[in-house]
Amino acid sequence: MHEQLALALEAYRRTSPLVHCLTNTVVTNFTANVVLASGGAPAMVDNPQEAAGFAAIAGGVLVNLGTPQEHTVAAMGLASASARDHGVPWVLDPVGAGGLPWRTQVAVELLDNRPTIVRGNASEVLGLTGGSGGKGVDSTETSENALAAARALAQDFGSVVAVSGPTDYLTDGHRVLALGNGVELMTRVTGVGCALGALMAGFAAATPDALVAAAAATTLLCLAAEEAPKNGPGSFAVGLLDALSTITPDKLADRARLEER
Amino acid sequence: MHEQLALALEAYRRTSPLVHCLTNTVVTNFTANVVLASGGAPAMVDNPQEAAGFAAIAGGVLVNLGTPQEHTVAAMGLASASARDHGVPWVLDPVGAGGLPWRTQVAVELLDNRPTIVRGNASEVLGLTGGSGGKGVDSTETSENALAAARALAQDFGSVVAVSGPTDYLTDGHRVLALGNGVELMTRVTGVGCALGALMAGFAAATPDALVAAAAATTLLCLAAEEAPKNGPGSFAVGLLDALSTITPDKLADRARLEER
Amino acid sequence: MHEQLALALEAYRRTSPLVHCLTNTVVTNFTANVVLASGGAPAMVDNPQEAAGFAAIAGGVLVNLGTPQEHTVAAMGLASASARDHGVPWVLDPVGAGGLPWRTQVAVELLDNRPTIVRGNASEVLGLTGGSGGKGVDSTETSENALAAARALAQDFGSVVAVSGPTDYLTDGHRVLALGNGVELMTRVTGVGCALGALMAGFAAATPDALVAAAAATTLLCLAAEEAPKNGPGSFAVGLLDALSTITPDKLADRARLEER
Repeated sequence: MHEQLALALEAYRRTSPLVHCLTNTVVTNFTANVVLASGGAPAMVDNPQEAAGFAAIAGGVLVNLGTPQEHTVAAMGLASASARDHGVPWVLDPVGAGGLPWRTQVAVELLDNRPTIVRGNASEVLGLTGGSGGKGVDSTETSENALAAARALAQDFGSVVAVSGPTDYLTDGHRVLALGNGVELMTRVTGVGCALGALMAGFAAATPDALVAAAAATTLLCLAAEEAPKNGPGSFAVGLLDALSTITPDKLADRARLEER
Repeated sequence: MHEQLALALEAYRRTSPLVHCLTNTVVTNFTANVVLASGGAPAMVDNPQEAAGFAAIAGGVLVNLGTPQEHTVAAMGLASASARDHGVPWVLDPVGAGGLPWRTQVAVELLDNRPTIVRGNASEVLGLTGGSGGKGVDSTETSENALAAARALAQDFGSVVAVSGPTDYLTDGHRVLALGNGVELMTRVTGVGCALGALMAGFAAATPDALVAAAAATTLLCLAAEEAPKNGPGSFAVGLLDALSTITPDKLADRARLEER
Repeated sequence: MHEQLALALEAYRRTSPLVHCLTNTVVTNFTANVVLASGGAPAMVDNPQEAAGFAAIAGGVLVNLGTPQEHTVAAMGLASASARDHGVPWVLDPVGAGGLPWRTQVAVELLDNRPTIVRGNASEVLGLTGGSGGKGVDSTETSENALAAARALAQDFGSVVAVSGPTDYLTDGHRVLALGNGVELMTRVTGVGCALGALMAGFAAATPDALVAAAAATTLLCLAAEEAPKNGPGSFAVGLLDALSTITPDKLADRARLEER
């Protein structure tokens, strides 16, 4: 699997996929910079007039529910349906699902468009499957506790489900990966998880096995976080972007802390 | 009062309050990072479907009028009314009030929901009370000139009013504090004042005396600015976030330049 | 011409023009910081209720089509018409024009309000004049190839047209300038081109010859990029903001790589 991570990063850099992001207003800038720094081509198109057409020609699509509004939710429905219809991989990040009723319903309806990857924290994954969700956007559950729900979700919708936490768990309903890279400061910068969703969409554009794509994107971001300075969240975020642009496929394979369960 | 500032920072860090931000599109990212760096838990929920429900469970709420749109203004009305009804402290930052008619009317109507704290520059505070306002978002008045208006506003609505400037004046209509920390570079980075509104909401969640909460938040941000490097606005903003994560309650009390009038 | 660039920067810094930005959600923060760092006064007012009134009192207006929504497009039409009617210079940045049908039509309609400056990459300039446009927001054409279209556009609408690329071409339909400053890392940070549009609006507020204004803004940003560290896109963006605040008019004239064709 380590070798496959290296190949996934190589493919991502070589193809520089167009990553169509429909994401929240807090993290648009950081998300675009994470995708750019690592070698992809981000574009935010989140109006109902253009979302479907753009998703059809994108390499991958991210739908993130951090700050939904009626018009962007309409665009998300259109983009994800178009992605499904055109065989474009798409990632659902159900930010706050479980804790907030409206977006939980939106997220559940988006599942019908069969996301390639669902990415969230434990509370959000549990929230998608009927749990009560966390406090705001932070998880109140451990990722271990969400693993059964993640596996069921993966099987029901043919998705890879990624549950973030100190250890990240990824499953396609059959295989389970546990990823151990990363540092605590990642939780003190807004949008690290949200940006990961965009990276996953980009990697899925370049690597057919979505479990490998999601694992490679996660490992790349976590390794960059390990390389960034630890003097505080400001310089950490800056160094994270720098590191994303320099980590090689070989280093990704060498330093990945990954276990197949 | 210096001792109370230290206790307020301690309480903020210990409780890590959920800060519900309805703010402008320019500063969402920086605001979230300021709250996170200092120890709070930001969440931006600015749609009419969820704003009231989320405000009810938040620790504090920020309403910032920097880039109002019809749908976010609707959410702001709902969130602030819900905050008032549920005893959740909320902060009104009437960006541009006085200078722009629509948002001035919106701001005046929001006052009916009795903000715990009103935070603005001198032009905005004067604009809220019938003055003509500044040029765009920058003040054309000194904070000293707005002090009488601030005191009247505080008495009329039972609010703490904070007027930013080289010296920051804070009043609950009776007590007046003058805060002397800070550096000029704070005006060359967008969103420093806007982020302060979110910090005030977070501190008010943890400290019942809103005047103390507002003073502690202001002093923390100004001290972090004093500690940040002064090579230019880019590295200054990065260092500001780093410093927010390391300033201790003791340092806050020691270094505060605060005078009770 | 080198002397005129220096005078343009001097005028910009002396007058600190109010730059009214209606721009995309990805780059609002970076755009505001670029304008602030270089010495201007940015304000984002993109609702239909206030856009016309604010444009009338602004120094310059930017309309950027990166993430259009129905309500912001309405505001853009009102702001640009008001700018035209009040003799306020305004800049059109038709992000994605040619590639995306809805915004292409929006951009073409905005041309009727006779932008002072049109700024885009080659694909976007070709897209405005009937070409097919690029992949997302990145150009698939060279700026040289767009020069004829740029000249025609400039003549038809009385605009200066700026085509970004490794060499930037600027024309008012008669004169042509080729600008050679800049570094490749500018394409690995989101919003550098978008922020340039705002700088152009600010410079045009202070310098009547829009070709000179556009050239000075471009050279300032490119020089700042040359001065910024090259360790990665994160620290590069930070250093770019620092450099914008320190580059002097003399240095601008000395270091400009500019050729009149």
